[in-house]
This record gives sequence, structure tokens and C-alpha cells, in this order.
Amino acid sequence: MGVGDPESLTHAASRALASADVLFTVDKGEAKADLNALRAQVCAVYAGPGLRVVEVEEPERDRAPADYRAEVRRWHAARAAVWADALLTELDEGGRGAFLVWGDPALYDSSLRILDDIRERGLVDVDVEVVPGISSVQALTARHRIPLNTVGGSVHITTGRRLAAEVAGHDSVVVMLDGAAAWRTLDADDWDIYWGAYLGAADEIALAGPLAELSAQIAAVKQEARARKGWIMDVYLLRRRPAPRRDGAG
Amino acid sequence: MGVGDPESLTHAASRALASADVLFTVDKGEAKADLNALRAQVCAVYAGPGLRVVEVEEPERDRAPADYRAEVRRWHAARAAVWADALLTELDEGGRGAFLVWGDPALYDSSLRILDDIRERGLVDVDVEVVPGISSVQALTARHRIPLNTVGGSVHITTGRRLAAEVAGHDSVVVMLDGAAAWRTLDADDWDIYWGAYLGAADEIALAGPLAELSAQIAAVKQEARARKGWIMDVYLLRRRPAPRRDGAG
Ligand SMILES: C[S@@+](CC[C@H](N)C(=O)[O-])C[C@H]1O[C@@H](n2cnc3c(N)ncnc32)[C@H](O)[C@@H]1O
Ligand SMILES: C[S@@+](CC[C@H](N)C(=O)[O-])C[C@H]1O[C@@H](n2cnc3c(N)ncnc32)[C@H](O)[C@@H]1O
Repeated sequence: MGVGDPESLTHAASRALASADVLFTVDKGEAKADLNALRAQVCAVYAGPGLRVVEVEEPERDRAPADYRAEVRRWHAARAAVWADALLTELDEGGRGAFLVWGDPALYDSSLRILDDIRERGLVDVDVEVVPGISSVQALTARHRIPLNTVGGSVHITTGRRLAAEVAGHDSVVVMLDGAAAWRTLDADDWDIYWGAYLGAADEIALAGPLAELSAQIAAVKQEARARKGWIMDVYLLRRRPAPRRDGAG
Repeated sequence: MGVGDPESLTHAASRALASADVLFTVDKGEAKADLNALRAQVCAVYAGPGLRVVEVEEPERDRAPADYRAEVRRWHAARAAVWADALLTELDEGGRGAFLVWGDPALYDSSLRILDDIRERGLVDVDVEVVPGISSVQALTARHRIPLNTVGGSVHITTGRRLAAEVAGHDSVVVMLDGAAAWRTLDADDWDIYWGAYLGAADEIALAGPLAELSAQIAAVKQEARARKGWIMDVYLLRRRPAPRRDGAG
């Protein structure tokens, strides 16, 4: 579904939504009410008149289990069972269910894994068709009007948690899922930052410039926005600054 | 414009195209005729009746210059001048020009750099708005119905030329711009491959499985397809296979 604006859906995606009998939703987290509102807006524009919306409950998860792997296995099984049950209860044979995934379903989203899991466990015989969507990374680069890569260079996409350990050797690094402000662990003189929060929404914020100048400001803006709205989603591109020339030519 | 299928454009992109006065195109390479046909199809569906299509000539480039940096500088200046001239000649004050970029404009595409260059040189006072598009990477993952990342893992996007040098330490690697078959430089036992060529077009090809089983086959399919059509565009995801367990448990 892209990141909120109904115009960011592709024609293929809006057509798929229009042809669905049931929309399955999984709601969680602090952003729930706001994301629900954006989804309702997308449905108001594109969904067929008979679309039913069915909320699938996430099973409870033990976040501090004695046996971590066993708990993950148990939770995956429980989740597959809940989803399979929803599909079987709500859809007729040959019916069409839709999942409106935030951004692009290939990036840090579990919907495809759950559907695979359902098929592998033999719970429901379901055909899956994936329709790509504009990701938050694309919303970020479009907003700042920048390419993701340098000329012929590579791009590393990672999470806030991994950033410090993985940044060496890369010159274009995208950071997602950063609950804190992981850019502060880097040497600020080495980087430019292109940052964006709530991209695609009315209260989108975007800031860009040398990390040494913006690091503290972005951290403050992030903290303030999260406090005000109760949640934040932000993504940023770090671009390594050209090394200063040593010949005195500037 | 996504990768060919008019349905893969977003509503925002088709609206932008519909409101353009002039579409600027730069045609080059062996894929020219086929890409022109796809673009014509997109325009037939979405463009306004008065859209004029203007082809911008790429300036000649010396591929083996005595002074490489000087030649790149000269060529960039020539290219900016040609584009600026096209904009000034073809658009009235306040007119709207469109550039239909293949895939997403942030990935291995020079349009945004050229427009920046024109502004930095003060050649034309132009406002740029970037509308994201579905990239070939997204067409690939959708076609194979796979996530780009492993759970919580990072993603490295690189070129055929850089693959061998950069692959260490990554578990999800996307390769673009691979003129050869760079996957053959890797240890095939370590990887699964998800490969796609001409994605989004009628003659799309997709193959996936253990690299050790598919490496030679994909190389042959690629060579045959390129010979038949005169050009190929392919992209692939390499996913590191779980290390075999050493405890004998399977
Ligand atoms: C669970 S991931 C889902 C990503 C999504 N599938 C996509 O394609 O963008 C959530 C993360 O995506 C990024 N994100 C998603 N939506 C965003 C938005 N509107 N503005 C900024 N960042 C966003 C943030 O890094 C956030 O932590
Ligand atoms: C100059 S880059 C442009 C990429 C484009 N901006 C995008 O977002 O996909 C061209 C490379 O993109 C990939 N590519 C583009 N279109 C493709 C398609 N339809 N099928 C497979 N690969 C494609 C190939 O790796 C090709 O070498």
C-alpha cells in the first residue's frame, strides 16, 4: 500500500484491492490508530462496496522465555494457526483475501513468511500473489530528490541495531527500524544524513545535511515528535562524505 | 514508470504523466526499441492527448581518454548543456516536462544527477518533483514471493562488478548491472539464488533454487536470451544458505 497516501498505490495494487472479498488486518503497536486511519482512507478510495474487514489477533508472545528458540517455534505455530483459521472461516472456496502491507511487502515485514508457513504446515491451500508497493526508502529518496547509490556504488540497508557493527566499508547506508538514534554512534564528520519521518503523511518531517551539524537536532526532533504523537517511524540514508583532499587544494 | 507494465505505475506517477506538456526521452543501447515500445504503451494508457515527446541526444563520450577525469568533466558539462537546451527550447515558462525513468529513479539512474547538475551550473531554473516507481528489485521479490531481508537481517545491493569483492559477511545480496554472470565467482554451495530477467514484460523469465544446482543453467538461459533478443536486463537475490549443523541432528 505504499506509505499512506492513496496516490502512492500502483494501479495493480488498487485493482487487487478492488477485487478482494475480505481485507485481513493485524493491528499492533502505538501507531495502530493512525495506521488504521490511513488504511481506511485507502479503502475508501479503492475498495469494492462489499469489502469486509476482518481483524486477525496476534497471539501473545513471551518476550523473556526460558527457552528462546522453543518460544519462537511455539509462537510461529500459534500465529500460523490463527491466520489459517481466519482464512478458512472468512473466505469461501475460491474467495480472495487481501493483506494491505505497509510500504513494500519485501522489506522488514512478516506477511509473506506467515503465508509460507501456513502452506508449509498444510493448513490452508492458498495461492499467493504479491503486488509490490512504494517503500519508505523510496519515499525518503523521492522526498530528498536523491539517488540511493553513488555512481556505480553499492547500497547497504540495515537496522538501527546493526548500524554500528556494519557501517565500515559502505558509502550509502539506509537505516530502518531505529528505535533510538543510532546515527549518534558514528563519526559524525564522515557522513551526510538524509532523514525522514512519517513520510507520505500530512505531518511528514524531512531534514538533510552534514551529520555533524544535524545529529543533535534530528535526535531532538525525533524525541519531540514521538512524545507528541505517541509513535514515530523514521528512516534515513547516510552518505559518506568525500575524504578531505590532502594537497591543500580545498 | 516501474519495469514496463502500465499497471505497475502508481496513481501519482500516472497523474504526473497526464499533466505533462512534454516527455523528454534519452534513448541508448540495444534495448532501445523494446523500451521505446513499453514507454509508448504507458503513454497510450495515461498521457494527455497533447503530450509531445522530445528525444534528447546523448553527447558522444570518449571511452578510452588520455585523461579520464577531464573527459568525465567534459562529458557531464556537455550533457547538462544538451538537456538544458532541450528544456529551454521545448518548455514555456511554467511548463511541465516529464522524464519516465525505468524502475525507480533512485536506483542506478542518472536523471536526478543531470537535473542537479543543470541547477548547480545555473543553466535552467527548474523545480524537480520525484515520483517513486516500482524497481526491478521489487518486481523480482514479488515474482518470487520472497522478502528481501532475513528476519532482522540487512540487505546489500551491489553490481556484478563489485559482487566478488563485497559479498563477505552479507546474507542477502541483490545484484544489478551484471553484464556477465558474476554469481559464478562465488562458492555455489553457500547460496540460494532468485533470478529474474525482463521482469514485468511478457517474456519475463524467473528461476530460483540452490546456486549449486542452477548456476550453469541460469548462465546458459541468460546467454541464449541475450542472443535471441539482442539485450538482457536481469537482477538476482543471493541468499546465504544456513550453515550445515555439526551436531549430526540434520
Ligand atoms: C516494520 S518496517 C516496515 C517497512 C515497510 N515494509 C516499507 O517498505 O517501508 C518499519 C520501518 O520502516 C520505516 N518506515 C516505514 N514507514 C515509514 C514512514 N512513513 N516514514 C519513515 N519511515 C518509515 C521505519 O524505519 C520503520 O521503523
Ligand atoms: C541502469 S539500472 C536501472 C535500474 C532501475 N532504475 C530500477 O529501479 O530497476 C539497470 C539494471 O536494472 C536491472 N533491471 C532493470 N529492469 C529490469 C527488468 N525488467 N528485469 C530484470 N532486471 C532489470 C538490471 O540489473 C539492469 O542491469
